[in-house]
Formats: sequence, C-alpha cells, structure tokens
Amino acid sequence: MTGKRNATFSWPLRVYYEDTDAGGVVYHAQYLKFFERARSEWLRASGIEQDTLAEEHGVVFAVIRAEVDYLRPARFNDELLVTVGPLAVRGSRIGFRQSVVRPDEESEPLALGMVEVACVDRLRFCGRRVPDFVLRKLKL
Amino acid sequence: MTGKRNATFSWPLRVYYEDTDAGGVVYHAQYLKFFERARSEWLRASGIEQDTLAEEHGVVFAVIRAEVDYLRPARFNDELLVTVGPLAVRGSRIGFRQSVVRPDEESEPLALGMVEVACVDRLRFCGRRVPDFVLRKLKL
Amino acid sequence: MTGKRNATFSWPLRVYYEDTDAGGVVYHAQYLKFFERARSEWLRASGIEQDTLAEEHGVVFAVIRAEVDYLRPARFNDELLVTVGPLAVRGSRIGFRQSVVRPDEESEPLALGMVEVACVDRLRFCGRRVPDFVLRKLKL
Amino acid sequence: MTGKRNATFSWPLRVYYEDTDAGGVVYHAQYLKFFERARSEWLRASGIEQDTLAEEHGVVFAVIRAEVDYLRPARFNDELLVTVGPLAVRGSRIGFRQSVVRPDEESEPLALGMVEVACVDRLRFCGRRVPDFVLRKLKL
Repeated sequence: MTGKRNATFSWPLRVYYEDTDAGGVVYHAQYLKFFERARSEWLRASGIEQDTLAEEHGVVFAVIRAEVDYLRPARFNDELLVTVGPLAVRGSRIGFRQSVVRPDEESEPLALGMVEVACVDRLRFCGRRVPDFVLRKLKL
Repeated sequence: MTGKRNATFSWPLRVYYEDTDAGGVVYHAQYLKFFERARSEWLRASGIEQDTLAEEHGVVFAVIRAEVDYLRPARFNDELLVTVGPLAVRGSRIGFRQSVVRPDEESEPLALGMVEVACVDRLRFCGRRVPDFVLRKLKL
Repeated sequence: MTGKRNATFSWPLRVYYEDTDAGGVVYHAQYLKFFERARSEWLRASGIEQDTLAEEHGVVFAVIRAEVDYLRPARFNDELLVTVGPLAVRGSRIGFRQSVVRPDEESEPLALGMVEVACVDRLRFCGRRVPDFVLRKLKL
Repeated sequence: MTGKRNATFSWPLRVYYEDTDAGGVVYHAQYLKFFERARSEWLRASGIEQDTLAEEHGVVFAVIRAEVDYLRPARFNDELLVTVGPLAVRGSRIGFRQSVVRPDEESEPLALGMVEVACVDRLRFCGRRVPDFVLRKLKL
C-alpha cells in the first residue's frame, strides 16, 4: 500500500422522488449512485475529466468491490452530503471511504461505505496501472 | 406508411421496490423501462437479438419520441402485463402502441403509450434504413 | 385554461454513468427524471417544499401525461440545463413545457417535453384542487 | 445464530439497456436491484408476499448492509441467474449470500454478494422480531 489518507471531499445532493421507494425512504441501491457522483466530482475537482481519460488514455474506472452500511434512512426532499476519502492506491486499484450525511449532523451518518475501483482498459476491461499524471493530480 | 397493425405481444413483470417511489406507487419514468422490456422481448420472440444486430449489422434502435398517459397507479408487488403493438415502419422509424395492464383487467389499462424508435448507426447515431431481414422477421 | 406562459426556470445537472446506457448515450427514461428534478427545484425556488405540501396539506403532484422528443443524444460527463416553463392550471392539473439543452447551445435542444401533473390526495390518489396558496406562490 | 444454510434459490433475468452504462457493461448499482429481485421471489416461493406482510403485520424488510464483489462484467442482452442463499436469523436480522452467474457457467460468478436485511416497523423503521410464521415458512 502506498498513499495516505487524504482530506475528505464532499458533494451536496437533494433527494428526489426518483431516489425513493414505497417504503418512504431512499432506495438502498441509490447510495451506490450517490457515492459515484461524489467520486466523479472529486476527480473533476482534482482536474481529471473521465471522458477525456477514456478517449485520450483508453482507461476507465470500474467498481470492483462495494460495501455499504445503512444506518439511518434518508427521505424525500432531504438535503444530503456525500463524502469521499481516497484511501490508497495499489497497482490498478484505488480504495475510497465514503459516507452519506446530513449537512448539520455529520457525526451521525446515514450510510457508510467502502468502494474499490480498478483502472481498466476501456475496451477489454483488463486491469491497467493508474496513469502517473492521474496519481500526481490526485496526490495519491 | 407501410405496414399494418400487428397482433399485440405482451410481457409479464412484477413490481419490485426498485420500481416504486415514496408516493407508494410505481415511479412514472419506470413505465418507459417497462415499455422497452416488452419491445426487446417482442424483437426476441420475432427472432431478432439486439446485440447481434449491433455487432453484425452496426445498427441499434434509439427512442426518438415517447408519450405516456398515466391512468391508474401500479403498486409494489403488483403483477403486470406490458403490451406492444407495432404500428408502422417509415424509412428508419418504427412506431409502437404500448400499454401496462393488470392480467385480469385488460380493459382498464394503468398506462397507455406511444413510442417511436429509429434505426441508427451504432457509432454515429445517424438514421439507417431498417434492414430488410428485420422487416421480414417482424412481418412489418 | 387560466394562467399565462411564465418565464422559464432552468436547473443544471451533470451526466454520470448512472444516467447512460450501453449505446453510449443518456438512457431515454432518464430524461423524465431530469424533467422532474427541474420541476422540483422550480417549486422550491417559488417557496414550495413538496414534503411540507404532503404532510401539512395532504397533497402530492402526480404525473398524468408525459411527452418527449429526443432530438440529439447527451453523453457521459456532459453538463446540461433542464428547463421548465409552467403553461397553465386547470382545476387539479398543471402543464409544463420542458427541455434539456447544453448551456452554450440553447437553440439546439437535446430533448423537448411536455409534462402534465395533477394535484392528488396523497393517500387516495384522487384529484384535488391545487391549493390557493400554491397558485399564488407559483404566480399561475 | 440460529438457522442453517438453506438450499440456494435462483431467479433468471435478462439484461436490458436500462441495466447498462456507457462503459458497455451492467451498471454496478444494478446488482443490488438484481439481488433484491431474487430475495423477493424467494420470499414469494416460500409463501410470503411482502405487501401482505406490510399491510397485515406492519413490517417490511430493510437492507442494513450490502457487500458486492464484481468479478466479471455482464453485458447488454445477457441472460443471467441471480442466486439467494439465506444464511441465518438473529433477532430482527436475516443474512443472505447472493450471486449473479451465467446459466451455463455457474462456477465462474460475475458477482458475489452478502446482504443483511432487518425486519422493521413499516412506519417507524425500528427493528421488529421476524414474525414466527415467517420463520416457519422460510424454514430458518
């Protein structure tokens, strides 16, 4: 393992009807989408656009493992923050610690997650080393 | 306009939590997915696999217009039938009349729709004539 | 028909992987979600929170008709604007003209839509007159 | 822990455009939906309808933890099997081992998962003991 725990990035979002289910709460699979939005925006904030990465460097990030603990329900119209804390890089893989919180209650997360992505060839889906310029921009 | 109204094809499905929203009913955008599942299975039942069509003939069907009237709500755990009735072919376009009904109440549809798809080049997304062998298999 | 064409409200969004399909473009059903996000934010900008409306007034807005014309594909990582222009109120119904555009190409919309919602009792799903305070806030 | 490893139940499904993303593969969050479809059908096959459980017994199953390992990509038009093997019951909780496989390649899973659900009060979302009649039907 190389890399260190980086400062956490957070991304705001609003819960719409599309995110909820008949139980009256945010549907559990939706949290993986929320996590990915935050990772995408963290990449963008670091100067990395994923469409450029795919077209010019031929690589995409594919999720290879995800874990989520659902602690408290989120509901329709809630305002949420999704956090992303990159953990470490190992060859083609990057691990992330993620959470969904309410802006004013960050010590009581609604969900905690761990997501591992792999840098893969966009066409053959085999592992590729994370490009050096990406690592430099991400400070990982 | 060539083609005639064909016999209607129907495809069963079950409503899961993923399909519902906090209003307690099936989320409205979901009906477009239900419609597409029925069109895909109608193609398959006619001997056309869309992955083969894309790989060997370089064409995909893209939705270019959709209309839905939501008449009665569907709910979690409901068993539904989605119908598809191809209407007509005009150059690269095929129109479909679609509905979502309960198996035992087909005269009281939950939703009625009209979807128009275009046969397009899979890479450039420009219109392409529907291949003749497709028209023959679809009897359109 | 009462009401007049109101100024158009627009809401920005970013296309994530969750919004796309294997055709490489934004999945067609997703546009109905984009339209609803813009309607929700237009309501919020007008001082109306839908969760409060449901809890305190017992009404929700249900989509009863939607039409979409898909003109040009949107792609992964695109930055988009969703517009909403309320058209008219008739009893329990409100019509909206909507579009999805690129911020710098508003004269060449990617999609155009028309969505009609009905104000319904949140439990019985029967039509209810749009509350007067809502009409006043929406200036419809 | 009470209960024993039960025989595995499996549920077939087809990959539609709605399930895929611009990477050309099934979107990762979709696997949680696939897992839930299989759990719902396993409950139904055991004689338990979740809408009845909610209405007559006031309880729903909420996902409280999920883990997924993505091993091989699934693609548009693939025919898949989703398996569910209930593991154990502890108070209000039931654990499940799940997988997504191709029908003819069950020894090479596309994804492996572990999902834990809690039996909760449908309104207050607090934990409730799994009703005895449910345990009897599930033979857990």
